[in-house]
Amino acid sequence: MNTRQLTELGQQLRVDSVRAAAAAGSGHPTSSMSAADLLAVLFAHHLRYDFDRPAHPGNDRFILSKGHASPLLYAAYKAAGAINDTELMTFRRLGSRLEGHPTPRRLPWVETATGSLGQGLPVGVGIALSGKRLDRVGYRVWVLCGDSEMAEGSVWEAAEHAGYEHLDNLVAIVDVNRLGQRGPTRHGHDLDAYARRFRAFGWHTVEVDGHDVDAIDRAYGEAVSTAGQPTAIIARTLKGKGVASVQDREGLHGKPLPDADEAIEELGGVRDLRIEVRQPPAARMLHAVRAGHLELPRYETGDEVATRNAYGQALAALGTARGDVVALDGEVSDSTRAEFFAKEHPDRFFECYIAEQQLVAAAVGLAARGWVPYVSTFAAFLTRAHDFVRMASISGAGINLVGSHAGVAIGQDGPSQMGLEDLAMFRAVHGSTVLYPCDANQTAKLVAEMAGREGVRYLRTSRGEMPVLYGPNEEFPVGGSKVLRVSPQDRLTVVAAGATVHEALKAADALAADGISVQVIDLYSVKPVDRRALREAAEHTGCLLTVEDHHEEGGLGDAVLDAFLDGRPTPRLVRLAVRTMPGSASPEEQLHAAGIDAESIAASAKLLVENAVVR
Amino acid sequence: MNTRQLTELGQQLRVDSVRAAAAAGSGHPTSSMSAADLLAVLFAHHLRYDFDRPAHPGNDRFILSKGHASPLLYAAYKAAGAINDTELMTFRRLGSRLEGHPTPRRLPWVETATGSLGQGLPVGVGIALSGKRLDRVGYRVWVLCGDSEMAEGSVWEAAEHAGYEHLDNLVAIVDVNRLGQRGPTRHGHDLDAYARRFRAFGWHTVEVDGHDVDAIDRAYGEAVSTAGQPTAIIARTLKGKGVASVQDREGLHGKPLPDADEAIEELGGVRDLRIEVRQPPAARMLHAVRAGHLELPRYETGDEVATRNAYGQALAALGTARGDVVALDGEVSDSTRAEFFAKEHPDRFFECYIAEQQLVAAAVGLAARGWVPYVSTFAAFLTRAHDFVRMASISGAGINLVGSHAGVAIGQDGPSQMGLEDLAMFRAVHGSTVLYPCDANQTAKLVAEMAGREGVRYLRTSRGEMPVLYGPNEEFPVGGSKVLRVSPQDRLTVVAAGATVHEALKAADALAADGISVQVIDLYSVKPVDRRALREAAEHTGCLLTVEDHHEEGGLGDAVLDAFLDGRPTPRLVRLAVRTMPGSASPEEQLHAAGIDAESIAASAKLLVENAVVR
Repeated sequence: MNTRQLTELGQQLRVDSVRAAAAAGSGHPTSSMSAADLLAVLFAHHLRYDFDRPAHPGNDRFILSKGHASPLLYAAYKAAGAINDTELMTFRRLGSRLEGHPTPRRLPWVETATGSLGQGLPVGVGIALSGKRLDRVGYRVWVLCGDSEMAEGSVWEAAEHAGYEHLDNLVAIVDVNRLGQRGPTRHGHDLDAYARRFRAFGWHTVEVDGHDVDAIDRAYGEAVSTAGQPTAIIARTLKGKGVASVQDREGLHGKPLPDADEAIEELGGVRDLRIEVRQPPAARMLHAVRAGHLELPRYETGDEVATRNAYGQALAALGTARGDVVALDGEVSDSTRAEFFAKEHPDRFFECYIAEQQLVAAAVGLAARGWVPYVSTFAAFLTRAHDFVRMASISGAGINLVGSHAGVAIGQDGPSQMGLEDLAMFRAVHGSTVLYPCDANQTAKLVAEMAGREGVRYLRTSRGEMPVLYGPNEEFPVGGSKVLRVSPQDRLTVVAAGATVHEALKAADALAADGISVQVIDLYSVKPVDRRALREAAEHTGCLLTVEDHHEEGGLGDAVLDAFLDGRPTPRLVRLAVRTMPGSASPEEQLHAAGIDAESIAASAKLLVENAVVR
Repeated sequence: MNTRQLTELGQQLRVDSVRAAAAAGSGHPTSSMSAADLLAVLFAHHLRYDFDRPAHPGNDRFILSKGHASPLLYAAYKAAGAINDTELMTFRRLGSRLEGHPTPRRLPWVETATGSLGQGLPVGVGIALSGKRLDRVGYRVWVLCGDSEMAEGSVWEAAEHAGYEHLDNLVAIVDVNRLGQRGPTRHGHDLDAYARRFRAFGWHTVEVDGHDVDAIDRAYGEAVSTAGQPTAIIARTLKGKGVASVQDREGLHGKPLPDADEAIEELGGVRDLRIEVRQPPAARMLHAVRAGHLELPRYETGDEVATRNAYGQALAALGTARGDVVALDGEVSDSTRAEFFAKEHPDRFFECYIAEQQLVAAAVGLAARGWVPYVSTFAAFLTRAHDFVRMASISGAGINLVGSHAGVAIGQDGPSQMGLEDLAMFRAVHGSTVLYPCDANQTAKLVAEMAGREGVRYLRTSRGEMPVLYGPNEEFPVGGSKVLRVSPQDRLTVVAAGATVHEALKAADALAADGISVQVIDLYSVKPVDRRALREAAEHTGCLLTVEDHHEEGGLGDAVLDAFLDGRPTPRLVRLAVRTMPGSASPEEQLHAAGIDAESIAASAKLLVENAVVR
């Protein structure tokens, strides 16, 4: 397209953005208008993408990090022939694929859900890493960012990662329209403020007038020809560009234009230009090839093994069997034991350093390219990436997250290192799976099992050694549980998982010596829970005593309730959990101080029996 | 102290770090040894601090962001005469104040809990903001950072905030010992890599040999005399400095030295040098002065008011009555309505832009200086700061967090903007308070009420307008609830909060027309819950139907269980919550699609009655 045509195309994208928002009665047309020329030139001249084959391995990837500018994206889809005008006008309606913020669950051309700012670039880094290190395909990743989101630390985690890894297949386009939601950004139209920061992190930068289509064209060309560095294109734009009543004015974020018809006329009216988006070069996926026999590690019952060790060993084995498994860690692989995978499969291991947002975002990006990522760090530090996990679930991304150092059982390091809210955090993620194994063989099986689940899957591992309870041939389906002690004389059921399973067994033995029989259930699948087993236990003993190395809210105790929410009679429920703020102490002292060790379980059970609370 | 004495002091801090870790059998001596000279010179020459009066308003503030180097901090406390050697040797023992990572709940000289990396500098920014803009006291904030934690985006949120605000009372000291936990950092001993980044964000930088006490002394002097900019001192150090067997070597993070006695000998043996820490200049606290009559906004029952509006108006009123109330927002104050406060009290409003980690950290820093901060952004985006909230609770920080745009009821913007896991996140925070008002008068009262609570307090507000249910004189104690409908004929109890209260009332009316009477409870205090009211309801109807605009895990439905966890008979429980992934639609359509609108509640109640599940 020549200059005039590109300019016209930019105007068309503006007009269609205004129309879509007007039809919806909401949305962000002014944020779309600032970036219209940037997107017009990208789609018309530089993006290589087959809209009929979004899974084409050679496709470039485009991420709209400023997801609220969705009208612009959808207008570009229309210009590219991917959707028609009728669909464009369904924007933000019930059932429409064109949501307020784009998501890949709805639209095949969207790489990742956006709408929480500062996430597009970190996910783009994950896709670019895949292109460079795994796919070995020459696709390019284009990320359109807002200037407001440059305040998010996650953007600088991404800048650091991309600069360090020399991701020259990654281009950040920053739409510097100087106005955030509430008002002016920190740096206004000071393009160099942004360029300086990117350069400090090792990026090539280009500053450009974001409404000069030829200059934009040259900037993209410069990005494409830059080797050894990612490129940031810092574009000076005007919010609401092209309509005098809204252009470069405050107080107009996230609102349809006051007079759409007038604005459309001012923009030159409705057009119907079509973009011939360039086809991607031929390419083939490499990683789908290998899938061999899985030889999980096997542990002898009675041996003392930390579940984090079993995680690392099982993951290494899974990586041997499956060529599509990759691992990422936040600079603690010696603790999480992801190092076992890293040593055996260094080509598929990603060191993400202490940047948990980028860590999870990279996994989302890798999952978007078809890889099966396992992410590990301390359970406590996964809270750092909570918003990324939340957005991953909106994307429908299949990622495995593994949090080590669960609970007070870690001992001396103290509360800052203890995962005590991770079960609550992951249970509340839509469509998630939450697993908490208590022994090495169970861990190994669950590591393999979780790969086959949809959505976000979480595995909680422990720091200390624990006896192996189960033989290596035992199976542990997700949604299942294990009854470890049962007899007709049981007075109550102790429901435990992970570290507390071993405490529960010790308590059951001590109680048995006192003539009190209790059932013990290992509820390794915290979500989904084994409703049948819990209901049977309720019928069997009428009282469930849950014991968890986690805060009392949102964890195992709450999970048990899932079995009884259809109005059926609920058993009596008693909960032992971490209710105090721990300090430093040995693991045994910690479990005792928190009231979740064998002694506390036995004492609680006795109290219930003595007070005739249980039958 | 002269060069020799400072050098000796550094060695003493090393020796005491080695001794403390050896006595504990765990800890991070090598990470302490790299920074020993940096801390020796700081405590001996530059820090102004009265250890007998940690609350002295003129005190400089020191934050050990690399909290795992706690042995070094405690060794410095000993050298300063704040603790004795006997206490030093209790490091990491049960009951000791000297935890694995320092916390202010235990030690009066600690400003904020550290141990999750990348948090010290953002909290330091909060304290420095207080010094500059509120206290107007000339204290200086010194933050000792590790080099590994420079990968955390939160560090660059802090760098951006401090640079933009010209916080020349803030000094970051980066201990570049080139080794992280697992191995080498990205940038090794490339000091300029760090300096470049800080400079790009507007900082003054000094590169220094971190084991040359005179050079360190000069660097601190340069920091003190730098006006208009924060200063970052980038210090080249060696991990394990001074002991050949561990110095600058991998694989020795977080472990006591292999041979402590030999190491102590190599370091020149045990010493007992005392530091005379400089006294702070006289200063007085200003903000404690004002505390006037609170005139909360009053709303007419039946009017339609969004609870977010009531939040902003009540906060503005609270700010008028109390001079110690401050507000912070993440660039969405026009949406959260914190703008009402900002307009009336611009001197006590902090715009933190889209950087939620820094937003919450600034509040933690302000709370450490005695201010009562209210932090607002969309509920969904508070997940970005989850780890900071977790650490705030370990600090015992008194902060108020307000999340707007709760639930599917926001409508068209779609799931990325919907707070659907915030109740779960905040309930699982140790010692937290979680409030969810359904009308404007209730909101206003709770905004004032929450200021008086300990720890982390969370208030959830809604986007849309809702009818005012309560008169302006009604009281809403934390831990309470309101019975909105009750009669002897009630077949079940609907428990709701926020938006669903209005749906529950509509459902109750519709059911009454069909001859089915139900009790309705407004459970505005989600944590602590009103156990008495819930138990009475259980006795009254035997079945609780909970309805929440939140994912089904960890929210209102789970909270209700808290009333029944002591082994007493549990009522039948039925839960309505958001179980599907929402798209874009109108608020009414969203509530209906999620099955939490009046129609869904009535249908569920009918089903329970027809199936004779309820009596």
